[in-house]
Parts: sequence; C-alpha cells; structure tokens
Amino acid sequence: MRVLVTGGGGFLGQKLARALAARGKLRGQDISAMELVDLAAPAAIEAPFPVTGTAADISDPAQVGALFASKPDVVYHLAAVVSGAAEADLDLGLRVNLTGTLNLLQAARAAGNEPVVVYASSWAVHGGDEPDPIHDGLELNPQTSYGAQKAIGELLLNDFSRRGLIDGRGLRLPTVSIRPGKANAAASSFMSSIFRDPMEGRPANCPVPRDFPVWHTAPRTVIGNLIYAAELEGAAFGTNRCLNLPGRTDTIGEMIAAMTEVFGPEAEARITWETDPVIETIVKGWRTALVPGKGAALGFAADASFADSVRWFLEDDIRR
Amino acid sequence: MRVLVTGGGGFLGQKLARALAARGKLRGQDISAMELVDLAAPAAIEAPFPVTGTAADISDPAQVGALFASKPDVVYHLAAVVSGAAEADLDLGLRVNLTGTLNLLQAARAAGNEPVVVYASSWAVHGGDEPDPIHDGLELNPQTSYGAQKAIGELLLNDFSRRGLIDGRGLRLPTVSIRPGKANAAASSFMSSIFRDPMEGRPANCPVPRDFPVWHTAPRTVIGNLIYAAELEGAAFGTNRCLNLPGRTDTIGEMIAAMTEVFGPEAEARITWETDPVIETIVKGWRTALVPGKGAALGFAADASFADSVRWFLEDDIRR
Repeated sequence: MRVLVTGGGGFLGQKLARALAARGKLRGQDISAMELVDLAAPAAIEAPFPVTGTAADISDPAQVGALFASKPDVVYHLAAVVSGAAEADLDLGLRVNLTGTLNLLQAARAAGNEPVVVYASSWAVHGGDEPDPIHDGLELNPQTSYGAQKAIGELLLNDFSRRGLIDGRGLRLPTVSIRPGKANAAASSFMSSIFRDPMEGRPANCPVPRDFPVWHTAPRTVIGNLIYAAELEGAAFGTNRCLNLPGRTDTIGEMIAAMTEVFGPEAEARITWETDPVIETIVKGWRTALVPGKGAALGFAADASFADSVRWFLEDDIRR
Repeated sequence: MRVLVTGGGGFLGQKLARALAARGKLRGQDISAMELVDLAAPAAIEAPFPVTGTAADISDPAQVGALFASKPDVVYHLAAVVSGAAEADLDLGLRVNLTGTLNLLQAARAAGNEPVVVYASSWAVHGGDEPDPIHDGLELNPQTSYGAQKAIGELLLNDFSRRGLIDGRGLRLPTVSIRPGKANAAASSFMSSIFRDPMEGRPANCPVPRDFPVWHTAPRTVIGNLIYAAELEGAAFGTNRCLNLPGRTDTIGEMIAAMTEVFGPEAEARITWETDPVIETIVKGWRTALVPGKGAALGFAADASFADSVRWFLEDDIRR
C-alpha cells in the first residue's frame, strides 16, 4: 500500500501524513511507503514506513508523471492555489487547479492500477443562484475562480472514475479552523488567524463583522474524514463521487465566545476589527449553511462544537 | 458588429450563418462581417456583408488567438467533438471540448472588448443521480465524457463572465432533430437519421426500441434560440449564465407517427430495428424529460410538435 500526497508540505498534508504514520494502515493493508509532494520538498516525518519528500510542480505533466512511476495505491490530491490567490491571478489558478488536477488524473490513468484518488474540493463550489441552505444535489454556482476550478476538478474526477481509470472520491471541505502556522492567501485565512494568533500572543485582524457566519470544521475532524474517504468503497458514493462534508455554522462572535470559554479572555482583546472590502466580497459569496445529508449518511464525521476545535488546537498545535 | 462562429462548417453553424445573413442585424446593429471557422474552411454563404471561411483548430491557442485579432463582438462557440467520439477517445474530447473552449475564452479575454459568447452546451450534462424529471438548479451529473466536458465549459464560461472578461450565455441544447446531411459520431445521430434517411429514400437503423423517449428540438427552433441568446442582456441570466433550453419529449414511436402523418407511410417502412449496445448505453444515460423553467421564463422558444419538425425539415432541407 503506497500513498502519495500532493500538497504534502501544507498543514493538511502534514497532519494527514502524521495521522497515516500513526495508523500504519490504510484500506486494511500496511502502508509500505509514502511520498509527500509540494513545490518545495516537504520535510520528512517519522513513520514505521519510508517517507520521502519530493519537490514537483503539478502543472507540469512530466513531473506529475514521474510521481506515478511507483504506482501509488492511494493518492491524496490536496495541492491547490488557494482562493485569494486564484482570484488575484486567474492564469495561476487555471494552471494549478485545473491543468494540475487534469495532469494528476492523466498520470493516475497512465499508471494503470486504478488508484484511489481522494480530492480536496471546497464548499466554495457553492454560491450565486443556489437557494439557502445548501442541500445536496443543487447545481453548483461558484462565485470565485477557485470554486469554479474546484468544481471542474470534481467533474474530471467523476468522469475518470466512471470510465474506470481511477477510483475517485471528492470531499467539499468547509473552511478548516483553527489552522496552525502562518496566514496564507486564502480569503478564509482570517477564519483561523483571529483565533490562532491571539492565543499564541499575537494580534490579528478580523475583516468582517462579529455576526458573520462561518461554515467550518476542525483539522482533526477533516483529517479523519480524508482517511475515511479512502477506506469507503467507491461504489458507496453513487454516480457522483463528490459530496459536501459535514461541518458547523457559527458566527465569528460565537466562535470567539467558544475560544474565551476554553482559553480565557486575554485572546479576544488582541483582535482588531478593520473591514477589508476585497476579502468581504469573496467570503460573502460563499455559503454559510449546508445540509450535507449524503456525507452524514455515508458516515463522515461532524464537529460537535467550536470549543472542541479550540481544545484540539491547544492539544495538537500549541502544547504538543 | 462582427460575428465569429466556431463549428461554422457544421449543420448548425451553416444554418445559423444563413439566418444571420437573412437578418443582417444582431443586438440592434448591422452585421459588418462574419467569420465561419472549422477544421476545414467552411464554404462561404451569401450575405449582405462579407463572410469568410477559415480553417483553424481550436485546440491550438495560437490559431484561436488569430481569430480574435479582429475583435469579434459576438462569438458563437459551436465547435465540439460529439458524444460518441468523445466517449471513444477521451484525450480528443479533452483537447477540443475542454482545452479548445478554454483557449477560446482566453483569446476572447485577450481581445479585451468583452465579447458576447454564446456557448452550445448540451442536455448531456444531466444524468446519474439527478432526480427525474430534470428541473433547473439540479447538480449536474453527466454520464458521458462529452457531458462532463460540456459542463466544464459552462463553469469556465460563468467564471469568465463573472470576472467581466466576456459576456457569456450557455444553452443546453436538446438533441436537434431532424438534422440534415450525413450521420455523424454523435450517439444521438440516429435520432435524426431514422427520419431524414427514410424520407430521402434511404434505409436507416434504429438502435433503440420504439418506446424510447427523446428530449428534442427542431433546427429552426434552436437557431432562433441561439440568436435570441445573443440579443438578451447578460444580466438577465443571473449568476448562472447557463440554462436548459426548452424542448419536447416524445417516444421514437410517437415521432415516427408524426413523420407518417406529415410525409406518408412509405418512410417508416425503410427503418430497421437492430439494437446497438454501445449506443444504447450512452443514450440511456441521458435524460428524456426536462422542465426548463428559467429558459421559458427568459423567453426561449419551445417546439409545439414533432410534426412541425418534419414539416420544417421538408421545407428547409429537402425542398429548398
């Protein structure tokens, strides 16, 4: 059982790699090797099997082809240009999120072993003319280039799966909060930084009002769901291999109250409230309430509270 | 007012060109020039303005870029690898239907005049887990590579329109029957040939049973709708520029009865009934009943009967 992770240097890729190292198994088999891929070679992690870090640009078909020479059995495709960057640079987003995903699927097809491909899509595929709340089965109407490119990846994943070239599963992730590390170019970056940075003693700005609702999930929950997606049989997904993952809706104010309950009041005092019209335009185009019936029925996990997310951040990312 | 038509050598492109020549105007302005593009240079048609036929391969960005040097104001993007061919050759379909459409949108963006782009999508974007009948707003779940590629083109058209790079409108055409000319690699080709060929004195085979339902529209209706799509203001489409065109559902048997009513009984006797499992698998994945509320509300035309389609075929394609 060989595992390949694109975006393996990112925070989700690194957390996923550590979780797989701790399990040692996937789909009932021992993991024999894991390759983490990113633009810069990811740091190796400790594991009971060999782990390699490889630098590769998925927008180059030759580099992606080389990653599949070892015929990985399970591929996690997490690499992407994030929302703010894809909105600022359409060509960059198309090159990585569209062409890069197509390159990966073509390389998986060429490998010839019908690998399981778990694709990180996003709740940003929803928006526009879709009625509220978002139920399963609504026509996707993304209002960002990132969301459009993720939705295109879903269609490719479905078609390559229907043709028996891969065994794909696409998960539309809610915004993942609280992310460790540094702020990035995702328009949703503040949805983590206003909790992470104040708890770590730094100031952070919130560019939207306190009553702004957020559709979110914790890193621990989403890593569990990414592993669970590979464990399920592909046929369980039906003819549409892509689904809305469970998540929670809370306002920024409710999330701050949960942080205060778990961490104490000193963090909130470090939050500033300067609006940012560019961020606000993007995030107001995203949906804040989803009803992911199919994901729940298939057994994907939901978050019980944002207070849990705060506790897990302290356990997994600050105090570990 | 300059008009560019890709797929301009095809039967829809040729009928559209003749209809535009007869009108002389589009969007309230005199047409000053029209360029018809196809893999082989289309034959010129008579018109009160210059018409050029150009050979170009839309899968080559440089060739598409050259088409936009003259900054067309309205672009009809009809060129595509049809359903049966895209199913038989995934790479060909991806190259023309996905990359070709992206090339066209990028060239339109580079032209810088925000042209109106009317995109021929297809009812083949529907299928799989979508409930019957197909209402507007359902998540697309195509069960052919052609349908997947058309749905990807829709997402790109929407995103380029949202960004103000083009003014796009996407129409999901029902199968167009009765098409003149020869059979092609579309899995739906028989839905025209079983009427066209017997009325022209040739035998034709029907690969599906008599009770097989078809979602169809007449060439005359669809040409009117393609012109109407360019005349509407883009904002009328809302945040989703793509919609299901009106059409009709009739069984093959009902369509044959309409042909007999208009043409007489001798045509039906020339139909043979040998099933074709490859064709049947593809067309059974398509939907046969749609409820195109948005298209009807915007004023797109519907067909009143298949008998009209037979009459129009005789008037426009046999007796003209």
